[in-house]
Amino acid sequence: MKIRPLHDRVLVERIDEEETTAGGIIIPDTAKEKPQEGRVVAVGKGRVTEDGSVTKLDVKAGDRVLFGKYGGADVTLDGNDYLILREDDILAIVG
Amino acid sequence: MKIRPLHDRVLVERIDEEETTAGGIIIPDTAKEKPQEGRVVAVGKGRVTEDGSVTKLDVKAGDRVLFGKYGGADVTLDGNDYLILREDDILAIVG
Amino acid sequence: MKIRPLHDRVLVERIDEEETTAGGIIIPDTAKEKPQEGRVVAVGKGRVTEDGSVTKLDVKAGDRVLFGKYGGADVTLDGNDYLILREDDILAIVG
Amino acid sequence: MKIRPLHDRVLVERIDEEETTAGGIIIPDTAKEKPQEGRVVAVGKGRVTEDGSVTKLDVKAGDRVLFGKYGGADVTLDGNDYLILREDDILAIVG
Amino acid sequence: MKIRPLHDRVLVERIDEEETTAGGIIIPDTAKEKPQEGRVVAVGKGRVTEDGSVTKLDVKAGDRVLFGKYGGADVTLDGNDYLILREDDILAIVG
Amino acid sequence: MKIRPLHDRVLVERIDEEETTAGGIIIPDTAKEKPQEGRVVAVGKGRVTEDGSVTKLDVKAGDRVLFGKYGGADVTLDGNDYLILREDDILAIVG
Amino acid sequence: MKIRPLHDRVLVERIDEEETTAGGIIIPDTAKEKPQEGRVVAVGKGRVTEDGSVTKLDVKAGDRVLFGKYGGADVTLDGNDYLILREDDILAIVG
Repeated sequence: MKIRPLHDRVLVERIDEEETTAGGIIIPDTAKEKPQEGRVVAVGKGRVTEDGSVTKLDVKAGDRVLFGKYGGADVTLDGNDYLILREDDILAIVG
Repeated sequence: MKIRPLHDRVLVERIDEEETTAGGIIIPDTAKEKPQEGRVVAVGKGRVTEDGSVTKLDVKAGDRVLFGKYGGADVTLDGNDYLILREDDILAIVG
Repeated sequence: MKIRPLHDRVLVERIDEEETTAGGIIIPDTAKEKPQEGRVVAVGKGRVTEDGSVTKLDVKAGDRVLFGKYGGADVTLDGNDYLILREDDILAIVG
Repeated sequence: MKIRPLHDRVLVERIDEEETTAGGIIIPDTAKEKPQEGRVVAVGKGRVTEDGSVTKLDVKAGDRVLFGKYGGADVTLDGNDYLILREDDILAIVG
Repeated sequence: MKIRPLHDRVLVERIDEEETTAGGIIIPDTAKEKPQEGRVVAVGKGRVTEDGSVTKLDVKAGDRVLFGKYGGADVTLDGNDYLILREDDILAIVG
Repeated sequence: MKIRPLHDRVLVERIDEEETTAGGIIIPDTAKEKPQEGRVVAVGKGRVTEDGSVTKLDVKAGDRVLFGKYGGADVTLDGNDYLILREDDILAIVG
Repeated sequence: MKIRPLHDRVLVERIDEEETTAGGIIIPDTAKEKPQEGRVVAVGKGRVTEDGSVTKLDVKAGDRVLFGKYGGADVTLDGNDYLILREDDILAIVG
């Protein structure tokens, strides 16, 4: 089964915290928003602009990304945790 | 009787949870927004842009879709549950 | 006496629930927004775009429509209940 | 003394409820927003668009109009009640 | 000393209520927003549009204007009360 | 050390109230927003418009300005109080 | 490991307060928003405009910047504190 995100949405597989720590990024326990890590599994065709044209996304399948803790929708598929979010909710590409 | 959604709205028939589980997607019980599944029954002509032209929708009748739990309006027609929502509330096409 | 809606507004005559049930649409009693039915009596000239041109509406007099429960303004004229709402508040055309 | 509304604003003289009832429109006592009636006395030159051009208004002096209960600013001039509101707050032209 | 309002802002000298009453406009004591009167002392060069061009204002020094009770910033200069507000907060020109 | 404001931001040195009073502007103690005075020390290159071009600011270093009490960020440099705010938060140029 | 900010986002390494004080900027303890200092480590490709083109950022790696206390997301990498924020949240370039 495949999930094809719509427009500017991105399907991200969460990376569990152990892997995160191993990768060198330690997220401190503060009151501020803490980004989380994941790997892009699939991306939409692009953002639909006001005049109907499509702007391709910058992230692509395979990218390891940081994203905000809040936002997006959780999906569990075949026992793995995924998140569907808009590309604008992705803060950075890691690695 | 037919329901023709207006502009960028989409008519979606809900897929009950048993079918969802059978399809392999298990939605965990968390505090986050959990997408729900449905099948597109009809779509509007497209989004009316600021200059009056029309941008066709990406989803089409027959598509199996994931959408947010909140948003849209419920309608019951001939004993089936439908939802009318905007295309932008659809997260992804499944399958 | 005639009511001519302005711009993108639409004058809708409510259809009472008995007729609704007869027509096959049963609206369940849930916490979600439940669309209501009506028949379009008159429509405005169209939406005035930013550059001053006018985009004609898609609904026309005679259309049977579904619209959200909240929004619009009630008017009673000659004993009938009407609603004035924006075309964007109309979810779908029925029939 | 004259009041010239600015841009897309409209000066409306309220029509008291007795006249309203005589005209055939009875506004029921519900929780919904109930439009009120008035007669347009003066209109602004038009809405100033983003590029600085002016889009003329659709209502004109003499029009009998329905408008929302909330919005606009009351002015009393020579013992009559007026309202200054934006054209977009006018729902329909009556008669 | 001179105050030159920036962009679409306008410097208005308040007219005290006695003068207002003499001029024929009596503002009733209701819960609605009651416009106040003043005389334009100076205007900005105009509204800066998105593309960087400038749209001149419609009001000019000397205009007697009605404006909303809330909004703008009070300044006292040489014992007189002034208000700096945006032109869009001005409802109408009087006289 | 130099502070170069970004885009449409402006660096303003506060003028203390004694100087303000000497200059003839007395700000009354009311509940309304009271503008404060300062002198522009540095300005950004201009506002970046949607299409990527830059619109230069109207205020320049040396201008004495009025600005709203709320908004902007305080910085103390070499014992003087500065404020970094957007040009749109500046109400007027004084003098 | 590298963090590449997306679009108009900027990766900033925080500068601790001791260094800040040494540099001459003392931030007073008031209720107002107090900017903080950091050094830009990496910047995104630029802001994606509505028509899909890209506007390059003004800040570049190495710039010492002031930014608001609130906003952005904290990341700790190899024991250093970073912040990912949008360029528009940067108030000024220092030095």
